Amino acid sequence: MANAPQAVMNHKQDEDLIRDFHHIWHPCTQMKDHAEVPPLLVDRAEGVYLYDREDNRYLDVISSWWVNLFGHNHPRINQSIKDQLDKMAHVMFAGVTHQPAIDLAEKLVNASSPQLTKVFFSDNGSTAVEVALKMSLQYWLQTEKPKKTKFIYLKDSYHGETLGALSVCGINLFREKFEQVLPQNLEVQGPDCMRCPFGLKRESCQAECFEPMEQALVTNRNTVAAVILEPLVQGAAGMKMYPPVYLKKLEEACKATETHVIYDEVAVGFGRTGSVFVSEHHGLNPTFVCLSKGITSGYLPLAATLTTEEIYQAFYDEYESFKLFIHSHSYSANPLACAAGNVTLDLLAEAGFMENLKPKIESMREQGDILRDLPWCGEFRQSGMIAAVELVQNQKTLEPFPIEQRVGYQVFLEGLKREMYLRPLGNVVYFIPPLVIEPDQIKTMMNAAYESISAVLKGI
Amino acid sequence: MANAPQAVMNHKQDEDLIRDFHHIWHPCTQMKDHAEVPPLLVDRAEGVYLYDREDNRYLDVISSWWVNLFGHNHPRINQSIKDQLDKMAHVMFAGVTHQPAIDLAEKLVNASSPQLTKVFFSDNGSTAVEVALKMSLQYWLQTEKPKKTKFIYLKDSYHGETLGALSVCGINLFREKFEQVLPQNLEVQGPDCMRCPFGLKRESCQAECFEPMEQALVTNRNTVAAVILEPLVQGAAGMKMYPPVYLKKLEEACKATETHVIYDEVAVGFGRTGSVFVSEHHGLNPTFVCLSKGITSGYLPLAATLTTEEIYQAFYDEYESFKLFIHSHSYSANPLACAAGNVTLDLLAEAGFMENLKPKIESMREQGDILRDLPWCGEFRQSGMIAAVELVQNQKTLEPFPIEQRVGYQVFLEGLKREMYLRPLGNVVYFIPPLVIEPDQIKTMMNAAYESISAVLKGI
Repeated sequence: MANAPQAVMNHKQDEDLIRDFHHIWHPCTQMKDHAEVPPLLVDRAEGVYLYDREDNRYLDVISSWWVNLFGHNHPRINQSIKDQLDKMAHVMFAGVTHQPAIDLAEKLVNASSPQLTKVFFSDNGSTAVEVALKMSLQYWLQTEKPKKTKFIYLKDSYHGETLGALSVCGINLFREKFEQVLPQNLEVQGPDCMRCPFGLKRESCQAECFEPMEQALVTNRNTVAAVILEPLVQGAAGMKMYPPVYLKKLEEACKATETHVIYDEVAVGFGRTGSVFVSEHHGLNPTFVCLSKGITSGYLPLAATLTTEEIYQAFYDEYESFKLFIHSHSYSANPLACAAGNVTLDLLAEAGFMENLKPKIESMREQGDILRDLPWCGEFRQSGMIAAVELVQNQKTLEPFPIEQRVGYQVFLEGLKREMYLRPLGNVVYFIPPLVIEPDQIKTMMNAAYESISAVLKGI
Repeated sequence: MANAPQAVMNHKQDEDLIRDFHHIWHPCTQMKDHAEVPPLLVDRAEGVYLYDREDNRYLDVISSWWVNLFGHNHPRINQSIKDQLDKMAHVMFAGVTHQPAIDLAEKLVNASSPQLTKVFFSDNGSTAVEVALKMSLQYWLQTEKPKKTKFIYLKDSYHGETLGALSVCGINLFREKFEQVLPQNLEVQGPDCMRCPFGLKRESCQAECFEPMEQALVTNRNTVAAVILEPLVQGAAGMKMYPPVYLKKLEEACKATETHVIYDEVAVGFGRTGSVFVSEHHGLNPTFVCLSKGITSGYLPLAATLTTEEIYQAFYDEYESFKLFIHSHSYSANPLACAAGNVTLDLLAEAGFMENLKPKIESMREQGDILRDLPWCGEFRQSGMIAAVELVQNQKTLEPFPIEQRVGYQVFLEGLKREMYLRPLGNVVYFIPPLVIEPDQIKTMMNAAYESISAVLKGI
């Protein structure tokens, strides 16, 4: 075992960590935590590992916030970025186009649900969502249904943190400080399979929990523009998982009530659940799909909002109609990011790649047994290459640990001692490793998680 | 002269342009325009020039949406990205840090106003603004002034297009389709120097137009969190320029009313006005500064929100207080983008670089004389390396051309024939070239603009 904690605790002597502390405000971080435990100063990365300056390594269990697919420092991705860099790093994307974007758009269209034909590029998941929301609003305005201005979102959903994206976020922790300024939308209770109020199982239910959504759609059909949700896995909620039948019901209800369907595949797209896109794999028919994170294999910021010909045509007219979609970001379709995106889609499409995930997914399931045996395991759940164990105080009542106890944060610290970069969501310890992780690494990862959780909870 | 229009019009034969038309929805573009004139398919770029596949070149007059500083394919920037790529393209920025971000944060802090000590990274100008708005709101919530939830913005301002950023945008064209869902803020009439209602001159006025802002601040002091504005140049409004005295008055009034000041230097920062940052150069004291565009010399998406120790300390507490700032983007502080950012700040700081801009700025002024002589010149205005000519129907009344006439778009098409990639804003033809442009290129650029404008307006 590497002497990780020693390396981590040496910060008083490490000038760079002191400079970090003086100048950087890290995202989603109580900076006072770093007065005790500084951030991990990562120097280089290779495959599934991050390395600090003392060459201690850490398995990137959560793919650097769910972005990395093929490991760090991948020769083909690196080369594609370098080749593009020698031609052109960037050019504006209004009035101009370029080969990397054209190729990537075509690959995205080919890999996604058949009715999705148009690609609008932006920079991150939040902007991909904002674009979908705005396109939906403007579509209804330009098709004589201007009252359709509200969005329905699920409790526990996450779609980004710019104010528009945050207005369809169903996790109070993210919203509460900004509630007064958020656009008002409609929150609906969605699936909660671990604590299913009907006492049913994901594998066999018929989404009996769909009722509130059905009601909301019927009642508000004249004012609702779209429903937005994360298909199959609600990531930030703690990798909450629900079955595709919910989505089938949703699409029927949305069709009946003339409501757009926005799937936020920012987290679940690009192979994570065992298929390239959830919506394509399950034969779904979204109006919009939002993509980011894995789109560049975790190398560069890029996002895309895919939509249908019908949406596009509502904006396509003489200039004087002013029906155009006025939205832009300076670095839209950045050629370097598109180059990485092209290799990403190529690697996912290569013969055998998706097939070869199956034994890994099976390995995640098998090795996860050790976590199922923990006396604090409320549920071990899995969707393809995403797995999670939700820790509870009481296995019978599923009573959670109080958030103030910071069980997850302590597991994170124990993980570092065991060469793991875990970052639990509340009391959910989860695994969303690079897709190239090998079975022996999966085993090591699950065992280290078991040890880390035990080390924290044995004393409680 | 290159045969640009021929190259542009060949699209029916160019398979890639057909693929573009089938799959891509370009930003801020009426896609039907491309049925007539396809986008320029740019293949490579070098220095101040973009090249198509037939090796026709186009001067990048607007620096690819105001991002490029040192020319395309700059050897030092390219090398820095390649070197970083060989170590690590990306790693998450929560719980982790890395040298490129630490170095860049320190350089930004050193180059900006003295009281700005903390850097929060994100991906684009919109997110940099959303972060500032959210930090301001949360600051007041956590310092017992929870009613301070409104923002004041200027008429004609632009701060991005995610819904939060759009809610402080003062240009109707960007807002009107989304008005129903935008958070409600306060628009104030700001400077309008070309049509000064007091009949004064920028060079000698005392910002007599400050009165409405003063009133708005005093009247709403209990509900206003911050004022946001673009210092000196309102970019998207058509490079509207106003003197720094307005900002001095603003800061006094904000201090008196306990209101934050947010300067959006996304467009004006990084040398554009002849200084690295407007706020630092003029001795201003903002609470927040938003940066993007030039931060990577126009190579990769990156943004930063800088703020003060006072703001930071209102969030710095025990975890259990839940005072942390909960906002994140997966690619925050992307190491490749930070590597480009570090070279950017180094190049700007090199001995003589800012000094050497002076003769170029003078050349822009001198060569701009030809545009001043146009019978349609309402005003030729300049702030450092940014210049603009606002075209009017009547020089005495300053009556604008109707927007439907698309004078600017026609000038754009004429520009292409003359090896220029211009992209006017409405009827404002503007110049914001890479800072490395040479005097002879400035002369060519201004002459080509003169010819393009004349070609369009002679017949009207």
